[in-house]
Amino acid sequence: MRDSLPPDVRKRNYVIGIIKEVYESYGFEPLETPAVENIETLMGKYGDEGNQLIFKILKRGEKLKADGDVKDLADLALRYDLTVPLARVVANNKNELPRFFKRYQIQPVWRADRPARGRFREFFQCDVDAIGSGSMVVEAEILSAVSEILRRLGFEDFTIRLNHRQVLTDILDTAGVPESLHSDALVAIDKLDKIGADGVAKELDERGISETASEMLMEIFAKTEEILNQEKDINRTIVGNLINIVSNEVLTELGQILKFAEKAPILIDPSLARGLSYYTGAIMEINVPDLAGSLGGGGRYDGLIGMFGKEQIPACGFSLGLERILVVMEEKGMFPPEIAASNSAEVMVTIWSDETVAESLKLARELRKQGLRVIVYPEADKLGKQFKYADAIKVGYVCVIADEELSEHKVKLKRMDTGEEWRLAADEIATKIGK
Amino acid sequence: MRDSLPPDVRKRNYVIGIIKEVYESYGFEPLETPAVENIETLMGKYGDEGNQLIFKILKRGEKLKADGDVKDLADLALRYDLTVPLARVVANNKNELPRFFKRYQIQPVWRADRPARGRFREFFQCDVDAIGSGSMVVEAEILSAVSEILRRLGFEDFTIRLNHRQVLTDILDTAGVPESLHSDALVAIDKLDKIGADGVAKELDERGISETASEMLMEIFAKTEEILNQEKDINRTIVGNLINIVSNEVLTELGQILKFAEKAPILIDPSLARGLSYYTGAIMEINVPDLAGSLGGGGRYDGLIGMFGKEQIPACGFSLGLERILVVMEEKGMFPPEIAASNSAEVMVTIWSDETVAESLKLARELRKQGLRVIVYPEADKLGKQFKYADAIKVGYVCVIADEELSEHKVKLKRMDTGEEWRLAADEIATKIGK
Repeated sequence: MRDSLPPDVRKRNYVIGIIKEVYESYGFEPLETPAVENIETLMGKYGDEGNQLIFKILKRGEKLKADGDVKDLADLALRYDLTVPLARVVANNKNELPRFFKRYQIQPVWRADRPARGRFREFFQCDVDAIGSGSMVVEAEILSAVSEILRRLGFEDFTIRLNHRQVLTDILDTAGVPESLHSDALVAIDKLDKIGADGVAKELDERGISETASEMLMEIFAKTEEILNQEKDINRTIVGNLINIVSNEVLTELGQILKFAEKAPILIDPSLARGLSYYTGAIMEINVPDLAGSLGGGGRYDGLIGMFGKEQIPACGFSLGLERILVVMEEKGMFPPEIAASNSAEVMVTIWSDETVAESLKLARELRKQGLRVIVYPEADKLGKQFKYADAIKVGYVCVIADEELSEHKVKLKRMDTGEEWRLAADEIATKIGK
Repeated sequence: MRDSLPPDVRKRNYVIGIIKEVYESYGFEPLETPAVENIETLMGKYGDEGNQLIFKILKRGEKLKADGDVKDLADLALRYDLTVPLARVVANNKNELPRFFKRYQIQPVWRADRPARGRFREFFQCDVDAIGSGSMVVEAEILSAVSEILRRLGFEDFTIRLNHRQVLTDILDTAGVPESLHSDALVAIDKLDKIGADGVAKELDERGISETASEMLMEIFAKTEEILNQEKDINRTIVGNLINIVSNEVLTELGQILKFAEKAPILIDPSLARGLSYYTGAIMEINVPDLAGSLGGGGRYDGLIGMFGKEQIPACGFSLGLERILVVMEEKGMFPPEIAASNSAEVMVTIWSDETVAESLKLARELRKQGLRVIVYPEADKLGKQFKYADAIKVGYVCVIADEELSEHKVKLKRMDTGEEWRLAADEIATKIGK
């Protein structure tokens, strides 16, 4: 985990501001949940590896039992993602929420990982989810919103990979992988990007999947790869290639998403697996060139909310990884210059002497009223030292009220980059600065 | 802890927005720190009671030792306030930060309390601190900023109570309380508001403070009380009353704060104690009528940063309690109506039939481009049902593209509160809605 100094916070807030604005323009409403959940809400939702990576909070007040079992020691845990808390909120607040609940949530999550470079144990997720409808309009709108966010941030060459859990199931069935080994196969296939076809074949073997099945799987994915490299109307051809393997209903759903989200750069990829086990329908992931891994991912999870309440409610969502976005934007210099500046104040007011402190503070108040961001140098120091400080923090303008200005009710304003100086009334300063 | 549904988040963001804007106009920069700190960073900083109230995080990966000692079980802990993390950041980043580092930080903190009504175990603090100067300009600017925030939020009758740790020390010395009992005496005096003079006298007795000393203390505070009830120029008279007890230097500091922060409604209160032990100079607290407890408090802590680094650096800060502010604003109806609305979308687009889904989505995109916040009803449902839903979520306008509109390239727009209807081109809608 790490501290975020002012320029980092400003950059993050810039990105979050655009994300919020776009999500809100799509009618998503903000939700926030506590950092801490009951431990049983989280355990068992993210697979065995997930259970290990959850930060657990020690019970309080009582004498802790001595047998070292986690269940006896911890009753609470830190939020691991934003989807499970959402499912809990929807199940608990069924009557207060609209039938189609569209929410976004931008909060940190915590994973007790040994994170790779550029990843952290505390990181922000920017989630958007639509609850209550099984229509592909939901998937399409989510993908349109996410695409608009990335375009507005300046990303141009991203791809949304789209798949469907049922496509994978049908492919696995066709290849003759027994249902009991489907999850194992998916864990292996999920690594196709990282370890290549040979690596996946090896892992499939280790996980007890027959060579015949493994070969047939690889053949289907190799065919996709071939199409990706050659075809113009790729999605149409990929779907054609799946016609004898996958049901019409599922292909129709994929086709609807493509049609409804017509401005989003979507590519159907039958090998996209996504790690999380709760997905039931469409799954998607966003990739950009030069970045291993994804900028975010999501999918439909029609079975999760029912785990927290009586009613099964359909849902679909997407999560943008804020840190990944920030890393790419930093590397490519995609931030506006004023966001990346070390300081956001526009003017520094100096203090001439111990006797004129109140006058300097009064001027600062006046300038703030004019809409300026103003720092006051806090002490009656040598003027040279005060200007040196203004230089160091790169503030654009400095004000001086020395005895002469004081008697004339004027202020000396200096522009730091050009050295220009003016003698003005306090109420003329904002205009001179151009604000 | 609790979930924040959309109207709650919107209200909180409204308040946070104003706080940020004012702090930034004073030249404070945003800082954020992780929710989780090393346990030894926090332990011992908040007194014995504080140690108990820190949420501790279970060690991971290893076989936990069985003797049940917290030190063997936990290595991390949840942030308890924002001041100690700031002190750590300043000590660790001395060379990267400006000499006078002015930062604000708005993040949740966690305390394993049994919270009173309207208080929570997860709550937001809005802290503002200025590091690196011992000048009273710092105290004055902080109090001016906080006052401006409260005024802009609509608070009119708040009071800032101001005291100085040295005033308390001098009063305790004058009353003959031995130095070894000063902390005990302060804990008791801190409760004057809640349990009254008799209650404090009783607690002083229990804590081993002599009756003579206790009586003299109560006499000094009673005199203050009397002045508060009678005098016009209260601060001047209170200071006069302290002249033989408190050093001139300290009275000068208080006088400077009053003079420099001339627009802030400050009242010197020699009985204000503040619980935290790290304060070394001015201490302050904000009260409003009808609310037990305070909206926030702060003070100077010139000794804390030195606990994390080699160098002793002066510092002063203030923390606004967001939940307390929200409670009062809710009770007094101080939120603008649009903030408290259940939904922030301005228009809902209906779907006429399965064949026209793409047209509805295209219209939604077009309206969003015009700057509107737009919900799409996600399914081709009966139109009556779609209008009923629009009513339920209280959206202002609804768009329909039925077959007729489709063939004419028009949209039917209905205003929900008046029932008015128009047939328009898509690009005329934002103007009609008045945006």
